[in-house]
Amino acid sequence: MNEMHISVIGIGAGSPGHITQDAIAALASADCVLSLDKGEDKAELMAVRERIIAAHAPHVRLVSIPDPPRDRHPENYREEVKRWHRARAQRIDAALSEHLPAGGTAAFLVWGDPSLYDSTLRILDSLETPHSRSIYPGITAIQALTAAHGILLNRIGEAIHVTTARRLAATSADDRANCVVMLDGGAGWMEHYTENTVIYWGAYLSTDWQVLRRGRVSEIGAEIAELKQQLRAEHGWIMDIYLLREENPSPQQ
Amino acid sequence: MNEMHISVIGIGAGSPGHITQDAIAALASADCVLSLDKGEDKAELMAVRERIIAAHAPHVRLVSIPDPPRDRHPENYREEVKRWHRARAQRIDAALSEHLPAGGTAAFLVWGDPSLYDSTLRILDSLETPHSRSIYPGITAIQALTAAHGILLNRIGEAIHVTTARRLAATSADDRANCVVMLDGGAGWMEHYTENTVIYWGAYLSTDWQVLRRGRVSEIGAEIAELKQQLRAEHGWIMDIYLLREENPSPQQ
Repeated sequence: MNEMHISVIGIGAGSPGHITQDAIAALASADCVLSLDKGEDKAELMAVRERIIAAHAPHVRLVSIPDPPRDRHPENYREEVKRWHRARAQRIDAALSEHLPAGGTAAFLVWGDPSLYDSTLRILDSLETPHSRSIYPGITAIQALTAAHGILLNRIGEAIHVTTARRLAATSADDRANCVVMLDGGAGWMEHYTENTVIYWGAYLSTDWQVLRRGRVSEIGAEIAELKQQLRAEHGWIMDIYLLREENPSPQQ
Repeated sequence: MNEMHISVIGIGAGSPGHITQDAIAALASADCVLSLDKGEDKAELMAVRERIIAAHAPHVRLVSIPDPPRDRHPENYREEVKRWHRARAQRIDAALSEHLPAGGTAAFLVWGDPSLYDSTLRILDSLETPHSRSIYPGITAIQALTAAHGILLNRIGEAIHVTTARRLAATSADDRANCVVMLDGGAGWMEHYTENTVIYWGAYLSTDWQVLRRGRVSEIGAEIAELKQQLRAEHGWIMDIYLLREENPSPQQ
């Protein structure tokens, strides 16, 4: 029945070279690239995306879909997110019917990996356009952070917890022993720490602006919080991520 | 002073196309590829690695380093792992001095991502050879799992827990609400579940043999356990991974 196909393509976390061979092939075979233009998207990140398209799929048409307005301080966070996703889905339905031929393939380029704190898959679930779907994993900011610091995410035999700054206060001490924190608009690391809490922090990962810091929160936490404000003022925006880890007073491997 | 350089390169989780552009560039610029030949490495996986080298770095020499013997049932797991890593490090030191020119670059190809339940970085920390190091992130089995199932790893605003089958029994109910389990030689999902526990299971991810199952553990858990035994018998080995998720009786987004 010439059903449409949607490729959801993870493009990695900063470096244009994070893109995988499978993702390049999927991008090059698409009929158009649909871009959800989030208000928060930054010119520098847009430039990375455009560079990827220019390098690997210069013939593919790029269609921008402006974001509907969003309540940033809703009474019910979950419901507002769902409402906003439905509104975005309607705009995508309209774009698909306007720009995609019957049986064609549309690609969505997603920062990081489509499975991790990204809304694209949820939005597509609200589409009315019948379609099949393929997903191409991408390098996440978590992996960019550990690679930049040259560390493992887990210690031998231990678990890993990944959470958001919003939930950090409600996170158990066990889980905070080795905890990646994402989506922190502030300096959540300063709210909870012990003498043994070490932070591995990174901003603008895998870009020319990359900044890294590591050390005990008790010693460098306040300095990183100040640095984050300075960098945000300097560049106009900031994206950062960090790992909190309880480390023994004596160094261990 | 012509210090040696080591590139630790994540090559993804099954598909040769998981490799990133940055990883390809790093591989192609290496003087040699050192391969830690783990006894458990499977011919099919070795073929993927060889295919990657043939496609992107046919001129680069591949040096195999056989693994030293390992006690699989030690009294002290952590100490035995460390001892084994040191023994491997000594063999790598010898290979570097034999095969790498002064100031040269050796590449290690790592399944998945070098930061996630992989021993390469720990082993390199035990090297006596002075060297600088670069790390190239790769697609993990976790991302291959979520992409294959077309799901998100996190639910809106929720945390993610990643652990090993060995630790699953000691994992809190909160953490089991959304929990990735790795390194399971058995069927750990059968040991702990509720009526609401859903499993997203995948084996041989991103390969021609890929098998996926999803459903309530109470309904399909035993069937997956049996399937895993059959597949292992059929192929001679199996690699699998799964997400356990507490889902409400009524479907939710």
